[in-house]
Amino acid sequence: MENGDGRETHPGEDRGIEMSDQSQMTHRRGKKEENSAFETAKSAAANQEEDDMMSIEKVFEGKRVPPWREQLTFRAMVVSFLLSIMFSIIVMKLNLTTGIIPSLNVSAGLLGFFFVKTWTKVLEKSGLLQHAFTRQENTVIQTCVVAAYGIAFSGGFGSYLFAMSSRTAKQSSEENSSQDTKDPQLGWMIGFLFLVSFIGLFSLVPLRKVMIIDYKLSYPSGTATAHLINGFHTPQGAKLAKKQVKTLGKFFVGSFLWGFFQWFYTAGDNCGFVSFPTLGLEAYKNRFYFDFSATYVGVGMICPYLVNISVLLGGILSWGIMWPLIGNRKGSWYSAALPPSNLHGLQGYRVFISIAMILGDGLYNFVKVLTKTIPAIISHAQSKNMASTLPYTENDNAATDSMISYDDQRRVELFLKDQIPKKVAFVGYLLVAAISIATVPHIFPQLKWYHILVTYTFAPVLAFCNAYGCGLTDWSLASTYGKLAIFIFGAWVGSAHGGVLAGLAACGVMMNIVSTASDLMQDFKTGYLTLASPRSMFISQVIGTAMGCVIGPCVFWLFYKAFKDLGVPGSEYPAPYALVYRNMAILGVDGFSSLPKHCLTLCYIFFAGAILINLLRDVVGKKWAKYIPLPMAMAIPFYLGPYFAIDMCMGSLILFIWERLDKPKADKFASAVASGLICGDGIWTLPQSILALAKVQPPICMKFLSRTTNDKVDAFIETLS
Amino acid sequence: MENGDGRETHPGEDRGIEMSDQSQMTHRRGKKEENSAFETAKSAAANQEEDDMMSIEKVFEGKRVPPWREQLTFRAMVVSFLLSIMFSIIVMKLNLTTGIIPSLNVSAGLLGFFFVKTWTKVLEKSGLLQHAFTRQENTVIQTCVVAAYGIAFSGGFGSYLFAMSSRTAKQSSEENSSQDTKDPQLGWMIGFLFLVSFIGLFSLVPLRKVMIIDYKLSYPSGTATAHLINGFHTPQGAKLAKKQVKTLGKFFVGSFLWGFFQWFYTAGDNCGFVSFPTLGLEAYKNRFYFDFSATYVGVGMICPYLVNISVLLGGILSWGIMWPLIGNRKGSWYSAALPPSNLHGLQGYRVFISIAMILGDGLYNFVKVLTKTIPAIISHAQSKNMASTLPYTENDNAATDSMISYDDQRRVELFLKDQIPKKVAFVGYLLVAAISIATVPHIFPQLKWYHILVTYTFAPVLAFCNAYGCGLTDWSLASTYGKLAIFIFGAWVGSAHGGVLAGLAACGVMMNIVSTASDLMQDFKTGYLTLASPRSMFISQVIGTAMGCVIGPCVFWLFYKAFKDLGVPGSEYPAPYALVYRNMAILGVDGFSSLPKHCLTLCYIFFAGAILINLLRDVVGKKWAKYIPLPMAMAIPFYLGPYFAIDMCMGSLILFIWERLDKPKADKFASAVASGLICGDGIWTLPQSILALAKVQPPICMKFLSRTTNDKVDAFIETLS
Repeated sequence: MENGDGRETHPGEDRGIEMSDQSQMTHRRGKKEENSAFETAKSAAANQEEDDMMSIEKVFEGKRVPPWREQLTFRAMVVSFLLSIMFSIIVMKLNLTTGIIPSLNVSAGLLGFFFVKTWTKVLEKSGLLQHAFTRQENTVIQTCVVAAYGIAFSGGFGSYLFAMSSRTAKQSSEENSSQDTKDPQLGWMIGFLFLVSFIGLFSLVPLRKVMIIDYKLSYPSGTATAHLINGFHTPQGAKLAKKQVKTLGKFFVGSFLWGFFQWFYTAGDNCGFVSFPTLGLEAYKNRFYFDFSATYVGVGMICPYLVNISVLLGGILSWGIMWPLIGNRKGSWYSAALPPSNLHGLQGYRVFISIAMILGDGLYNFVKVLTKTIPAIISHAQSKNMASTLPYTENDNAATDSMISYDDQRRVELFLKDQIPKKVAFVGYLLVAAISIATVPHIFPQLKWYHILVTYTFAPVLAFCNAYGCGLTDWSLASTYGKLAIFIFGAWVGSAHGGVLAGLAACGVMMNIVSTASDLMQDFKTGYLTLASPRSMFISQVIGTAMGCVIGPCVFWLFYKAFKDLGVPGSEYPAPYALVYRNMAILGVDGFSSLPKHCLTLCYIFFAGAILINLLRDVVGKKWAKYIPLPMAMAIPFYLGPYFAIDMCMGSLILFIWERLDKPKADKFASAVASGLICGDGIWTLPQSILALAKVQPPICMKFLSRTTNDKVDAFIETLS
Repeated sequence: MENGDGRETHPGEDRGIEMSDQSQMTHRRGKKEENSAFETAKSAAANQEEDDMMSIEKVFEGKRVPPWREQLTFRAMVVSFLLSIMFSIIVMKLNLTTGIIPSLNVSAGLLGFFFVKTWTKVLEKSGLLQHAFTRQENTVIQTCVVAAYGIAFSGGFGSYLFAMSSRTAKQSSEENSSQDTKDPQLGWMIGFLFLVSFIGLFSLVPLRKVMIIDYKLSYPSGTATAHLINGFHTPQGAKLAKKQVKTLGKFFVGSFLWGFFQWFYTAGDNCGFVSFPTLGLEAYKNRFYFDFSATYVGVGMICPYLVNISVLLGGILSWGIMWPLIGNRKGSWYSAALPPSNLHGLQGYRVFISIAMILGDGLYNFVKVLTKTIPAIISHAQSKNMASTLPYTENDNAATDSMISYDDQRRVELFLKDQIPKKVAFVGYLLVAAISIATVPHIFPQLKWYHILVTYTFAPVLAFCNAYGCGLTDWSLASTYGKLAIFIFGAWVGSAHGGVLAGLAACGVMMNIVSTASDLMQDFKTGYLTLASPRSMFISQVIGTAMGCVIGPCVFWLFYKAFKDLGVPGSEYPAPYALVYRNMAILGVDGFSSLPKHCLTLCYIFFAGAILINLLRDVVGKKWAKYIPLPMAMAIPFYLGPYFAIDMCMGSLILFIWERLDKPKADKFASAVASGLICGDGIWTLPQSILALAKVQPPICMKFLSRTTNDKVDAFIETLS
């Protein structure tokens, strides 16, 4: 391979569905800047102006917001079910072929709209229409479909779950005893998913107001989806909105066609624009390149400048400085014989330092929220004001009512109207946890009840970390948390007691929790911006998750039974990540001691560093905090590489220049442009997946070779003809 | 090779210097539409609006136009001399390495400006400055340099002239007798060039008013250069002009950087964006692709829609329909064993049908001009009005004075002020012709005096054809005419009497005439738009040509003596076209009978077709003529392939959309954008050439492989590492 590191080290998987999806920020934060200590997100957000979208809810003023029960219609559920099956098949296919799964929830929103719109049009003509199609209903469909097909990814059919099978175990060198393998069966797979997939929903529901309203996290994907849905449902006569929708449409088409064009040149590995060594081959080897992703340019236009710059800084610090330096210690710090993708080698530093930093930042913010939230809950309870079950609601609104925009006012009002009682969340969580603790050890005897208990004790923290990071940067790191679980539980259970299988199972529990948590919060953001009721959203998610728990395993079962060489390298469905996960689990049973030299020390340093930087940001005050990077954002490229940071900075740069040239226009249309870029690219993945399913392969490979290699290849091609 | 046709068939050479250079039309034609029969160019021009540049000469109103003697300064000649040497070295190097020579005259204009500006700045500070630097002087430098380094190309040091050498003859299979070889010697080379290089100048001088003022031919390169020079010298306070220059600057930088960026990916043959199979590999094999050339997109924005569409139609007719159909007759119409680049095969149809069509169109227009011009000259002579030595001047001006714009008025006035007496042109032509007829047979005994006489009798027709076609489309087809001469004179002289060498020598005569003719007219267009005196331009050209006749051979001699393996395949300086030309000459001695089957018939059909289409255009009137394609424009892609037509149509499309969106802005800035695109790309060739001279090779190859080839290559690369 030309680039030194093949597909495996390329974080295709993490670049996949976990980005939760790409989108754009319809809603620029209000002027309100309360004196709370949580400036992390806000001071970043303050970099952006917010006059632009003030009209969105004015435009919709005449439209009645249906009560939450009416948002959950029968037709919505039928459409959701059909779309869920379709997307699950696509995701499963991709799971089992390359393991790279693009995000499809913009597609879900769009297709949901078209399907229900057609349905209502037909009914309207036949005079049978009872309810008009509203954007809230649209959001409900999108949420349900995302929840359902999310399981096809977080169910691990291409990774941890299939890694348990004896078929994968045979390809691995050791740990093939029966206590280390578990072959797929429809029954236990559905059961397991039902047990672990709902925990994420309950664990973060109480924190949705903190994340969405107080922190004003951007959730670019959720925001873009909301913008798209708002666009579809804009009433006639809304001039600016029409213009914005038109702009969105133009960039949507452009981005879609760009994706289509790119596709033609991707026959083979490392082909096409995504492998374009824009900054040279040396930089490409260190993953510094612009990969022409319309999605991430759009994300960059939505994320505050501080986030983009933090991500880039993190990329430079890690891939520009640290990894090359550590790479020079090859042979001393770690065995020189290891490939770069081996967790005992350089990859170990990448993964674990990244995780340490994310954990440091996440923990700091989690503790900070708790220290603010718990006293507030207590004081609320004492004042017996039951109107608001969430902390801070009243004081916040009272203090800033006059200052926040009409849009924010209306959105906050509806977001807080239909509450999901805290009690439901707590009881739900405890109930599901109790059942899981009792049942999961029956599915995986290698996991004991206390393992599950520990997991469910810490799960909310990790779920919060992931949802928080995802809100900042649009990256969900579910599989990173999953890998962490492999190591911790593998080491804990130990090699002798089936640690490999225990690690993989724990990975499944962890991934399901953190992945659904970030999806949920992303969807709440969409709901917030489309005035969908949190209650209907939550119920839709529950229904979607339940659908997914059945559809996912069934689709996998179909593939498993239909293709007898599923999981065999070189076959049509090699499921490449299954073996990767199994090997990680085999490493994991040796515990942290198997980490390369100084790796743990570095992890401590970065863990502490993340906390210190956060402290510093809180201490210096808003004025200076906006110049201090965000550790969470910095940590993401540690593992993935800085290429997406370059895309995002390109988006920032475009926005910056645009604002310089024509500020009013940029303010009005930047979000539409960004949404168009993100959605077009997102929708393109749908025909792309269909092409892949239909075995239509791209015809051309755009390849990048160094001059010397090229000379050899030219000579070789000469011999072919 | 993947693409079926290698470098050789790729018309690199014709794509080179012969495009005369790329530029943009500052001057949109005036509203005046006289009822003359020559609507060819005008009706096309009428598609474009012309209000935009009206202010150019108003801006310069306060600036005195120096008399022609003051335009020819000593410093201009010194700077020209230095630049001529520099550009000649670059062109020679490229001649001898790949044979692909980009146009450098925008660079000449720009560097001329910088050098003299620096010179005058220094003198100004030391108080020694006598004359301010004017745009006319700038034009004079540019003209002189283009004339001088043009000889480095049309001198054929990489093609016909070196093809005569015994070193090249050795590589060819036959005709190696002493009467068929002539080794380079400084003496005869300089002498030969002096004899043949001035004929082109004299032959077209009398027709300059017809071409520039009456036909209003666009000469995109000359126009762009003029725009650039005008931009440099724009006086302070000219607001629109400043804005236009700023726009030009932006696109200049963008286009330059784009060229720079592209360079990195061109390590090796068929690498980089110029080989991008934008429309698929099948289309690429038939040369249908967008090659990302900023130059041709700019040219497309300048050329009238009709020209661009004609070029595209021609491309579709030839490469889309005819060549594939003829290709199917392989084995029947021509030997299946021949490579596609062989003139006995498919390439023969391409070259000769193209030539037939160009000749048909050129001849039609030449005759048309003559039938209008000669009576006018006679009637002028009878009325004894000596103020205007050119036909039509008065009636035209009188009839349309009130209708033409201020710019046109002023330009026409100055263009007609300093006449080059017709007598000078005729006497000069006859004198040079007489000397040549007497002397050339002494250099090449194989050519008899009557051969030269015949050449010089028909030369003006061909020179006119080329200058006319170049004015329409910016393509100079000098080497095509040269190839024609190889065949005609080779066949005439015959194999037994040294027909190979005679053919090559005749090629030299022909190429020099038609190449200088189109360069001259291109420069006259620049002069017209910068108010430079035609007289100073003409003298500058004469001086430049004389410089070139000495510099060119000297530079070649240096290379020839310094690199002992010059011309040897695989060496550093293989001079690939020398062998190509020699092989053509060897073919040529067999006469037209050696053409592939039906080729001559097709040539007759297309020759007649070109005349018929022109007749039709004249008969149906202006209203319909604008829907009838131009045969001259259609013929060019016959040989070269339609890829540049696609670039040009892209330019048209951009302009079209822009005009739809914002007509006033498009009118004001389209030409600046186009100029910027063309000039930036043009200037980039300078550092690119320097990089090539310094042996700095691009590091990466962006390669395009079909999926099956890619799989094999991937397997091969695997074995490398």
